[in-house]
Amino acid sequence: MQTTLSLRDVTHVIGPDRPTTIIGERINPTGRKALSTELEKGVFDLVRKEAISQKAAGAHVIDVNVGAGGVDDVTVLPQAVLVVVEAAGLPVSIDSSNPKAIESALKVYPGKALVNSVTGEEKSLETVLPMVKEYKAAVVGLTMDDTGIPPTAEDRLKVAEKIIDRAASMGIPAEDILIDPLTLTVATDPKAAMITLEAIRLCVSKLGVNVVLGASNVSYGLPARTVINAAFMSMAMFAGMSAAITNPGVQEVKKAILAGDVLLGRDQWAQRYIRSYREEQKAAEG
Amino acid sequence: MQTTLSLRDVTHVIGPDRPTTIIGERINPTGRKALSTELEKGVFDLVRKEAISQKAAGAHVIDVNVGAGGVDDVTVLPQAVLVVVEAAGLPVSIDSSNPKAIESALKVYPGKALVNSVTGEEKSLETVLPMVKEYKAAVVGLTMDDTGIPPTAEDRLKVAEKIIDRAASMGIPAEDILIDPLTLTVATDPKAAMITLEAIRLCVSKLGVNVVLGASNVSYGLPARTVINAAFMSMAMFAGMSAAITNPGVQEVKKAILAGDVLLGRDQWAQRYIRSYREEQKAAEG
Repeated sequence: MQTTLSLRDVTHVIGPDRPTTIIGERINPTGRKALSTELEKGVFDLVRKEAISQKAAGAHVIDVNVGAGGVDDVTVLPQAVLVVVEAAGLPVSIDSSNPKAIESALKVYPGKALVNSVTGEEKSLETVLPMVKEYKAAVVGLTMDDTGIPPTAEDRLKVAEKIIDRAASMGIPAEDILIDPLTLTVATDPKAAMITLEAIRLCVSKLGVNVVLGASNVSYGLPARTVINAAFMSMAMFAGMSAAITNPGVQEVKKAILAGDVLLGRDQWAQRYIRSYREEQKAAEG
Repeated sequence: MQTTLSLRDVTHVIGPDRPTTIIGERINPTGRKALSTELEKGVFDLVRKEAISQKAAGAHVIDVNVGAGGVDDVTVLPQAVLVVVEAAGLPVSIDSSNPKAIESALKVYPGKALVNSVTGEEKSLETVLPMVKEYKAAVVGLTMDDTGIPPTAEDRLKVAEKIIDRAASMGIPAEDILIDPLTLTVATDPKAAMITLEAIRLCVSKLGVNVVLGASNVSYGLPARTVINAAFMSMAMFAGMSAAITNPGVQEVKKAILAGDVLLGRDQWAQRYIRSYREEQKAAEG
């Protein structure tokens, strides 16, 4: 199955036989005081900078989250999205838990955006999916519902099915849904990664949909997190993940993705891998 | 299934629920002129050094290969094995394509060794398995036969079954066999890694045996090989591999293994991972 995003005449296709899609996660004020302060003032210098640097590092899609709290997200989110559109020229993932902010961003976005996200919660399904339909967007479906995040892979699959079924009933095709089976940290639950990996496999084999993962949670609370994140990325790719919400500036993770694409036959003759290696060599030589 | 190796009173158990077993591959003169020269002279300084450094880097088992060519392996292999036994105090993998050299090493080895390797070739089955039985050793079974390395995962599974059946007929239990489904390079065959990963999964799910992998071949001919090897290691672990023949001194691969054990629930509460991280920090601080 192929999920197409676009920005004006630029399209990006997400699919299991293609190089893994990197959705740049850096435009998010959580834990980033400077970005948070700018967004509260309606200043977008850091947003612009992060859009450009993530594109340079290999992002295919830029996630835009302006947070909540002190920010008037209904006003600021569409502004930030347009800043990213002009700076990076890449399709955007509109990331908010506020449906009104999502809608105001969808209204100004010139193309087929990714909405991040809908859940299996009734309220979310009822408010987000109609917008996805109206603005012909694609959407990330998080496998959690009114009871929280199910502790088993099978139950996360059921939530994914619920989201897909509800979307279908509104005329949204399955290819416009990326399922995110969610990841908790292995620091507190040694089975956390395995449950997610099994959920990926189930979603891909039973539903045939594209799976996206915001994978860095998995290492929360551990030292040397990028090492865990890189290994998890490789495993998730093998399990069937076709898009990752990550920071392409983190070399360990970026390299794990490029290497994984070679190993999974998504980078024929390792062309992209070798090109990236050469660019790195060149940069190192100054 | 659990495979037990031993050296005198030291035992090492290989199994899917345990931390991944690292079999140190460095004592092998292929492409290493200095080691080759020493072995031809019957000098074992480098052998001793590699045994000690691989143990320090985290190896659980030391592979000993003295090559062929200029070396009188029937004499030199048992000598090298005993040097490793005294230097590292770890179980040994006796690695040779010469059955006579294997037998001379088995004769002197004080414990349950790993024989590396038998194949599905008639001649190999007929000569190697009787020694494995006689000396109560364990053995690596390579999934290749008189027709070469099968191009499909299913056919590699068949060779694994053949080896296990033949061993059973001689009274060698399946737990004493580690199947190596072999890896070719993705540089010349984009499907090479996927075939091996699928073969691992089949061998584990259908036969329940332990799978070992000499995984570095996968990146032959590519730049930045350790990055590919590390990603492949993570994928192979998730597919079910329980032992790796590798160089534990290569940080990328070693870290991928430690991180993979955390993610697969083989390192409860990340105790080993955190200990290794702290040791690295300490070493860095001098």
